Amino acid sequence: MKAITIALLFFIAMTPQAKPIAIVVHGGAGRIDRDALTPERERLYHATLEQSLRAGHTILKRGGSALDAVEAAIVIMEDAPVFNAGRGAVFTAEGKNELDASIMDGRALQAGAVGGVTTVKNPIRAARAVMEKSPHVLFTNQGAEKFASDNGLEIVDPKYFFTERRWKQIQKWLKQQEATAKPQATAEPDRHADYFGTVGCVALDAKGNIAAGTSTGGMTGKRFGRIGDSPIIGAGTYADNRTAGISCTGHGEYFIRHAVAHDISARIAYIKESLAKAATDVVHTVLKQAGGSGGIIGIDAQGNVVMEFNTNAMTRGSIDTTGNLKTAIFK
Amino acid sequence: MKAITIALLFFIAMTPQAKPIAIVVHGGAGRIDRDALTPERERLYHATLEQSLRAGHTILKRGGSALDAVEAAIVIMEDAPVFNAGRGAVFTAEGKNELDASIMDGRALQAGAVGGVTTVKNPIRAARAVMEKSPHVLFTNQGAEKFASDNGLEIVDPKYFFTERRWKQIQKWLKQQEATAKPQATAEPDRHADYFGTVGCVALDAKGNIAAGTSTGGMTGKRFGRIGDSPIIGAGTYADNRTAGISCTGHGEYFIRHAVAHDISARIAYIKESLAKAATDVVHTVLKQAGGSGGIIGIDAQGNVVMEFNTNAMTRGSIDTTGNLKTAIFK
Repeated sequence: MKAITIALLFFIAMTPQAKPIAIVVHGGAGRIDRDALTPERERLYHATLEQSLRAGHTILKRGGSALDAVEAAIVIMEDAPVFNAGRGAVFTAEGKNELDASIMDGRALQAGAVGGVTTVKNPIRAARAVMEKSPHVLFTNQGAEKFASDNGLEIVDPKYFFTERRWKQIQKWLKQQEATAKPQATAEPDRHADYFGTVGCVALDAKGNIAAGTSTGGMTGKRFGRIGDSPIIGAGTYADNRTAGISCTGHGEYFIRHAVAHDISARIAYIKESLAKAATDVVHTVLKQAGGSGGIIGIDAQGNVVMEFNTNAMTRGSIDTTGNLKTAIFK
Repeated sequence: MKAITIALLFFIAMTPQAKPIAIVVHGGAGRIDRDALTPERERLYHATLEQSLRAGHTILKRGGSALDAVEAAIVIMEDAPVFNAGRGAVFTAEGKNELDASIMDGRALQAGAVGGVTTVKNPIRAARAVMEKSPHVLFTNQGAEKFASDNGLEIVDPKYFFTERRWKQIQKWLKQQEATAKPQATAEPDRHADYFGTVGCVALDAKGNIAAGTSTGGMTGKRFGRIGDSPIIGAGTYADNRTAGISCTGHGEYFIRHAVAHDISARIAYIKESLAKAATDVVHTVLKQAGGSGGIIGIDAQGNVVMEFNTNAMTRGSIDTTGNLKTAIFK
């Protein structure tokens, strides 16, 4: 009996294991007031995150690519008004919805991004089209819209992105700005922390490929033409099969100046930091010392998942390599 | 006598040395046909590089900031039609001049950038204004133009950027495209190598501050709205007093995907590579293996200067810490 057990264990150990698959998503980091969070909104956060994770994970389970999983997961969050991406995006100071997105394939470091689009229903799809159907990485504004339209992506009237909730936010923001008369006030990350929001996804597929994507409506009251970190490869998004995939959310300017997504990858590559250590250092030390609020999600080549943030909340979730699903909002 | 010599040497060794200052510029990398290069054009390259270096160096010698030196040096190259930045920029596939620029201050990792501007005379000044007068890092297209205009920068008619030479280039390019009917041809870096061009500058001032800046008209025949690496902090430009300042030129998409400027900084920070080693590895190994043509210039915290490129030419020059000026075109 003992011999059989040993033989069986030996057999299991020798069987080629299914390669790990994993997926992680975020729906933005910032300050969420626990008392003001209605049960309905809380339920919506969890339900949308779960739906997004399952959409991506189903693709991964069937042997699909990390890239397809990331796109599918982000499309669901873009279509859900509860998140600040696609429909439900925040308004600029001029009362418009300007959307940014990027995607990266860690296999050959291919990447695509769009900035400042106002008519593309799913900016993440436009980012992927830029990656796959153009020799370029980043298109902005009307050029990005023309490219998306030329490539058959769904174009919508700008009012498709309108939601009552975000409209009220910008009206309130404009009144505050008028009252303080400091429209360019800087270095007040906490005051603005509740306005961050972005969605993102990182996935590891059964072939060992890592992909990462990010999509956003930017910051409430951002100036016309401002581009944050979300469409910036190396800042808001990075993926390299040899290290990890990363998607960021937060006060974008800090993420650009510290090249956050690439920095985490570089720490893993150059000083063999674990993804967890690199993410913790960057989010809780580097960014925090600089005054940059936000968070990151990531998956490394072994399928380890991280979700780190230095705000009181980050809507997030993951299905890890054991198939365990979880979603969360607060710390 | 011997005692006096020793005392003198001791005195020299103890005297606080003047802190090193240095400046390096590039006017683009690519393929320049030696036989087709007219003496007049060759003279113009050297003369403009020297004028640019001296403008920046004069500021540094007087105790001015690296940031002022970088801006002054780049303005001269933007104003010179011989380089692909500002006046003399290449044309897009649609026959427009769309300009990108970025600047970074290595002291506190402040940065500013503009993308796709068509009416700002000196895009590098607009990048600096974004850094200093807005809470944002990157503005694009009309938003960038409005910001520049609101902040008192010189606005010109788009035809200010027109030069006969560049117009002939785009006409030739359009004919080639028609002939090959492959307007989106990728992975042919060498065919396009002669079209690269960008200007950049890195300076180290007497206070130990490093600044870097980059300005470009992009690639001949680029698609409407395409943004290259020049306005992307971490890709085309990076500066960190603790490591180095970097400005890149070349096939921008490769520089974005490999986060070239930040990668060089990260190698110095994390594995203590010298600037020379990091630049050599990234330009001649990483980029070359990926198929990315171009080059980089940089200065580290000790004042060491690098100018590395994997094309046959990069118009470039430096005034090193000993005050030695040199300009060059070929290897």
